Amino acid sequence: MTFASPVAFASALADLKAPDCAARSAALSRQRRLTKPAGSLGRLEDIAVFFAGWQGREQPRIQQGRTIVFAGNHGITVHGVSAFPASVTAGMVANFRAGGAAINALSGAAGLDLAVVPLEIERPTADFTQSPAMTEDECLAALNAGAAAVGSDLDTIVLGEMGIGNSTAAAALCARSLGGDAASWVGPGTGIDSAGIDRKVAVVDRALAHHDGAPRSAFETLRRVGGRETAALAGAILRARQLGIPVLLDGFICCSAIAPLFADNPAIVDHCLAGHCSAEPGHERLLGQFGLDPLLRLDMRLGEGSGAAVVAGVVRAALATHNEMATFNEAGIADAL
Amino acid sequence: MTFASPVAFASALADLKAPDCAARSAALSRQRRLTKPAGSLGRLEDIAVFFAGWQGREQPRIQQGRTIVFAGNHGITVHGVSAFPASVTAGMVANFRAGGAAINALSGAAGLDLAVVPLEIERPTADFTQSPAMTEDECLAALNAGAAAVGSDLDTIVLGEMGIGNSTAAAALCARSLGGDAASWVGPGTGIDSAGIDRKVAVVDRALAHHDGAPRSAFETLRRVGGRETAALAGAILRARQLGIPVLLDGFICCSAIAPLFADNPAIVDHCLAGHCSAEPGHERLLGQFGLDPLLRLDMRLGEGSGAAVVAGVVRAALATHNEMATFNEAGIADAL
Repeated sequence: MTFASPVAFASALADLKAPDCAARSAALSRQRRLTKPAGSLGRLEDIAVFFAGWQGREQPRIQQGRTIVFAGNHGITVHGVSAFPASVTAGMVANFRAGGAAINALSGAAGLDLAVVPLEIERPTADFTQSPAMTEDECLAALNAGAAAVGSDLDTIVLGEMGIGNSTAAAALCARSLGGDAASWVGPGTGIDSAGIDRKVAVVDRALAHHDGAPRSAFETLRRVGGRETAALAGAILRARQLGIPVLLDGFICCSAIAPLFADNPAIVDHCLAGHCSAEPGHERLLGQFGLDPLLRLDMRLGEGSGAAVVAGVVRAALATHNEMATFNEAGIADAL
Repeated sequence: MTFASPVAFASALADLKAPDCAARSAALSRQRRLTKPAGSLGRLEDIAVFFAGWQGREQPRIQQGRTIVFAGNHGITVHGVSAFPASVTAGMVANFRAGGAAINALSGAAGLDLAVVPLEIERPTADFTQSPAMTEDECLAALNAGAAAVGSDLDTIVLGEMGIGNSTAAAALCARSLGGDAASWVGPGTGIDSAGIDRKVAVVDRALAHHDGAPRSAFETLRRVGGRETAALAGAILRARQLGIPVLLDGFICCSAIAPLFADNPAIVDHCLAGHCSAEPGHERLLGQFGLDPLLRLDMRLGEGSGAAVVAGVVRAALATHNEMATFNEAGIADAL
């Protein structure tokens, strides 16, 4: 187990690795020598420098990139918070394994492996309006399943999730971690109607009230109002940081897993690139609180890591320019400057 | 020659092909059957349907995609309108051919061929504050060079340009075609200072005044205040329409080539996808007038087709989902709906 106890998890979160400043500086200097007006590749330049810092090399690469999709089921679905029945989670896990989902196509297009990690989907978490969603052991197991999915051989990870009901858990995680009332974090998810949104808000309100007096550490918040897949995402993100692997974030639910960690240590987002801004309204707000500016706005709202996988293609483009372009000296047009 | 005369060019522009509605409908219907909540892939879905309509098949592909970069030089550079000397155009053409420029890396990352088409770069256009930039024959030759670069074997084209001074020509093309004063279309280009911007505005103002009484057809505007590379872009865009090939547009200069055509027939933009919104301020305004919503906003301002080539990767992702995802029936989760 990467995280032997809640205390070990908290210690790891308190002691976050910094980027490699020498590699970052070398990459910045390289950018200035490439055959283009300074700054003219815009955010592609920022991406290359970001990756250099976290991969610890002037010329970062995506050679071992992996999409990791965590799946879980949620006790709160009894309250009618999703447009889809909970059985769809298992159906979609089978679809991921058969290669038929959006994330299969998108990972393939971006040259990424795909790992699918279902987390006891036959055993939903408890209804968190009544009790914590998970016991300590259950939450720790999910965190460690997330950490274990991040191999030290990887140089880039794309994170995604699947879990009917998890946009309600995501709203609860955000509200409990960052404040704001339930309504400001709840959205239509996969497409529930306005009566469904009202039910989601009521569920989140009840959950916030039920757990209000409980400890507010990242672990406790994940355990009380998260899901197995969100805890796994949190474990994966923290493990990636320990290993110096840059993370491409997906949508609202993926990012909601960071909210409890961010409340304890805001530096947790530093190795994360905000892939896209989802159509789920809470996502923009959440990214704003993290201080992250999403690369793409394509009105996507699927999850599975789909937005982040599209961004992986943009990262590949950024690294291609950074690594393959000639310098002014090499091109013999130094005098032009 | 694709366009035997200015009149032939005008006739082609007046008689634009429509998309294949049957293919478009089939693609829309396919999208509804794929294993995802309806609409959850956002603009990726729109891209797939757009490509289906223009490629005329339910399952569009990028199998023969090409970036075409046109390069030219401009008489107006005598007025100090660029941060770089005109000799850089030839230097960058050599860099494109040697494989060292951003567009080489980006075309490679997107799986596109790259064709570089220099247009008499040793012979700049005339100073268009004094006379038309090109004679009729010169403009027709440039239009046809653009058309000739669009092979009927291609299924997607990315358009780019290189030409010191061409953001000034672009501003003149926009102002003359669409109205608005010079200052509203002039920007820093590759990075000129504010005194340089003032010079650019003055040059565009003088050009607008000089040609004010002349005929305002697309051809005459291209000939009078355009450049060889912008005329070639216009020829390529019109030829692509005749052949039913979707076009990914790059930045301000690439799009400025459409402005005179748009003034004569606004339907010219229908087979064009606005790739990105450049940091050059006129670009957002121009795309707004075209009614095009750019896919990416990455603060790029390089030209060469660089922004459009990044978008080609996003298009590949969109088509991968469209073509490779399972339907609900195939995945056996039809009941979920």
